Amino acid sequence: MATSLVRGKYVVTGVVDDNASDVTADGAVVQRDGEIVDVGRYQDLAARHSVDEVIGDGRQVLMPGLINAHHHGGLTPFQMGSLDLALEPWIVTRMAHRDVDTYLDTLYCAIQMIESGITTVMHNHTGRRAPGESTMDSCTQALKAYRDSGMRVAFSLFHRDQNQLVYGEERDFLAALPPELASKLGDRLGGLGMSTDEYLALFVELYERYGRNDPQGLVRILLSPANVQWCSDALLMAIKETAGSHDAGIHLHLQETIYQLMYGLRRFGKTPLGHLDELGFLGPEVSFAHGVWLEESDIDILAASGSLVCHNASSNLRLKSGVAPINKLVASGVPVAIGIDEAGINDDNDMLQEMRLVQKLHREPGVDGPCLTSHQVLRMATVNGAEASRFGGQVGAIEPGMRADMILVNLDRIAEPYLDPGTDPVDAVLYRGRGLDVDTVIVNGEVVMRDRRITMVSKDDVYAELGAQLARDPAPHEAARRPLSKELYPHVHRFYQRWPLEPGQPHYLYNRAR
Amino acid sequence: MATSLVRGKYVVTGVVDDNASDVTADGAVVQRDGEIVDVGRYQDLAARHSVDEVIGDGRQVLMPGLINAHHHGGLTPFQMGSLDLALEPWIVTRMAHRDVDTYLDTLYCAIQMIESGITTVMHNHTGRRAPGESTMDSCTQALKAYRDSGMRVAFSLFHRDQNQLVYGEERDFLAALPPELASKLGDRLGGLGMSTDEYLALFVELYERYGRNDPQGLVRILLSPANVQWCSDALLMAIKETAGSHDAGIHLHLQETIYQLMYGLRRFGKTPLGHLDELGFLGPEVSFAHGVWLEESDIDILAASGSLVCHNASSNLRLKSGVAPINKLVASGVPVAIGIDEAGINDDNDMLQEMRLVQKLHREPGVDGPCLTSHQVLRMATVNGAEASRFGGQVGAIEPGMRADMILVNLDRIAEPYLDPGTDPVDAVLYRGRGLDVDTVIVNGEVVMRDRRITMVSKDDVYAELGAQLARDPAPHEAARRPLSKELYPHVHRFYQRWPLEPGQPHYLYNRAR
Repeated sequence: MATSLVRGKYVVTGVVDDNASDVTADGAVVQRDGEIVDVGRYQDLAARHSVDEVIGDGRQVLMPGLINAHHHGGLTPFQMGSLDLALEPWIVTRMAHRDVDTYLDTLYCAIQMIESGITTVMHNHTGRRAPGESTMDSCTQALKAYRDSGMRVAFSLFHRDQNQLVYGEERDFLAALPPELASKLGDRLGGLGMSTDEYLALFVELYERYGRNDPQGLVRILLSPANVQWCSDALLMAIKETAGSHDAGIHLHLQETIYQLMYGLRRFGKTPLGHLDELGFLGPEVSFAHGVWLEESDIDILAASGSLVCHNASSNLRLKSGVAPINKLVASGVPVAIGIDEAGINDDNDMLQEMRLVQKLHREPGVDGPCLTSHQVLRMATVNGAEASRFGGQVGAIEPGMRADMILVNLDRIAEPYLDPGTDPVDAVLYRGRGLDVDTVIVNGEVVMRDRRITMVSKDDVYAELGAQLARDPAPHEAARRPLSKELYPHVHRFYQRWPLEPGQPHYLYNRAR
Repeated sequence: MATSLVRGKYVVTGVVDDNASDVTADGAVVQRDGEIVDVGRYQDLAARHSVDEVIGDGRQVLMPGLINAHHHGGLTPFQMGSLDLALEPWIVTRMAHRDVDTYLDTLYCAIQMIESGITTVMHNHTGRRAPGESTMDSCTQALKAYRDSGMRVAFSLFHRDQNQLVYGEERDFLAALPPELASKLGDRLGGLGMSTDEYLALFVELYERYGRNDPQGLVRILLSPANVQWCSDALLMAIKETAGSHDAGIHLHLQETIYQLMYGLRRFGKTPLGHLDELGFLGPEVSFAHGVWLEESDIDILAASGSLVCHNASSNLRLKSGVAPINKLVASGVPVAIGIDEAGINDDNDMLQEMRLVQKLHREPGVDGPCLTSHQVLRMATVNGAEASRFGGQVGAIEPGMRADMILVNLDRIAEPYLDPGTDPVDAVLYRGRGLDVDTVIVNGEVVMRDRRITMVSKDDVYAELGAQLARDPAPHEAARRPLSKELYPHVHRFYQRWPLEPGQPHYLYNRAR
């Protein structure tokens, strides 16, 4: 499709400030070869441009594509058998999951994301591999899935070089386990390893192959040290240097749980972020997922650094991490983006649902207690997501010269049987829209979902093939992982039980014991 | 329908304990004239009973109907033009809402509730009346709507006799307003009034007409003093006495916001609940909505009283009330039910969504931090809701002798393309089910929704008529309310701005400032 005109009852081109977005009634957008070339009133644009296609019947809201700024992709951990638990023991339950074909798994998730209006995802690849697959193969298959789906992706491979089982000396932990269990785990730990040089070489290869030369600019390759407690200082700084020499982004988890904060305080005598600051690791190329346990001093450090935070509201609740101090980050000028992180509250990757949870969760009591407007949340899910995923200035708003990533949201269900005529369309979508209200999704000018039908791949085939593969009995090596996970679980749980919480003074006061 | 057999791939008859529900694979339930007469394996029941109809194709989850234990009904405040705000100024924005036909408004909401699997609602009627309608007419129209929809209802009329504008001396507040505004408001306050005798007489009339003699037992009439700051001690105790003489339930709001708590501490030198306890108001016939600002001492009082708490997670977030200390209530043995309170997080009365928010919201950090299992949340939305709505022992579980209130939840979307075969069906529904997955709803043996089609009334007609009525231009008296609301708003906002928060130590620690 060379040119198209996309029409909306309301066109939301972008967020103006905390209390307003720019909205054109009966508006339209013209794109040519994936670039937005004109924005205005429908009648004017229809008169001015001869286009190959008109999209939208003038009854929907046209708005920028949504950006999911932290994700790992695939079937959800719950679908694979993990109930919600505190992060650290929950990770152990993931060991029991079946193998899944990387390509199909990623494509399944991409389809779900497109269905809720996500046009760009920050995919943090955990490096889990199907049997016989190399890590490079796994990355390639995941990238192929995004390419085939039509989505824009900021891709990084998650890497760590320490503390895989618990936040502490691996040898001590293994030594305290029953010897047979320790020996099985020791083998596994070795098998997961990759040296820093190998990791950086893999990044460079992906970067050269996809992130740098991608003709449509739909892919960015980022670096990803897993988290402070999982990475040596040497690994962190080697990554920082490589990012600098390639003008690449860095994405990592940070202070997701209270245990991660406490680990930093024990190990470094300061918060993990304070340690990163001291190392000289921070900068505008760095984005952090979670940041639930950021202290006041951390918020000051972040504000000075130019780094971003990707907020994962559902995941933080589900994994008992807590509630990130988003109001304070926003007040300090730290850019906040939103990530679904594999699931979302409904376990279905619905970005509008996640945006709504973010909006409702951070409403501090009192008539002047801080809270987020619909426009602030929309900014997080568009402009700030674009910055975090290294597509800043190219997507996240509807402006001439930017890439044509847009969605049409159906207002029928949102406004039935009545909606006060004074309602701002952005409030209407943020308060009442769900993924299933998204009609049409356009990435780089291409329609990747039309009238709720995925266009680039066969959803039915993907679902059928994925279901058929998993309907087979587990292979012996898969079956063996389940008892191993069950056996390890109580030891990890007990490790943290012996680690008493040091709660302190919270950021938000949602209730009062006395 | 005299008899029917309802079939499920899984039949969840009820909650056994915090970690398990009773589940029969390939099960069924037989009901006769609205009473459950047999529960067991499908093959056994099909052989044992000759029935008029078989419902369900053996692929769904059959479970007890859900109970929405605190609601006010109708189009949502957002649909009528109110953005989410702190409760006290938000109440002022409600003054600007259009008039709505009570019958249609209630029926619209009943349809939405049935569509998400709600079979019983605790409807707390605010007494808002369409033009020319008496309060009794308004109650009668709302009750007729529930009757026509097929739902079970615990109905109460909300009543108050003080502090309508702010929590404090009305005369002082009015005296400080611009005189013209004060005079308009003074007229309005007079017009809303009803004496305690009139209120109690109205209760008795409704009770005699519907709550006592209803042949199918689908209606309970409860009493409802609005909230401690809105009721004189004399009103509270007159209601308590009338409830006792009629064996009726009492439902009221309590400590919903920090201002309500602070009002109690200033006025009584103790919490509002402490004051109720001192009055001798408490007992097992009393249920409280919200309870966000319950202190430790309040939880002890509740545990000793036999009173219940109806938790309104979405409403508490949306209206900046906070997060109720549900984990502590549960640990103390206080029965907790769940209410949507007009909207829910998605502004659409989806009970499964509300249950999920409850489950995800109360997950305290740390490997042993308190949290709720799916079974505990299901208990809240069934057995505990039945107790709060005064249908205890009759609905809330699937057992011979109980009334036949049941729902069939479609597993197709929940389990596609894969769900670990070891997943408990209750977890599957609680983690991934949404209102739209509810296929069929049965109340008192009658099918009120079949294959997602509402059976007792025409949904299309209700939506069309409600939409048409509101599409008309506002009448002069409706149009006049909007500027009045706008004029009053800043005065109420300022009243609470001058009331500094006294936060104290919270129940939950979700993050840490230092």
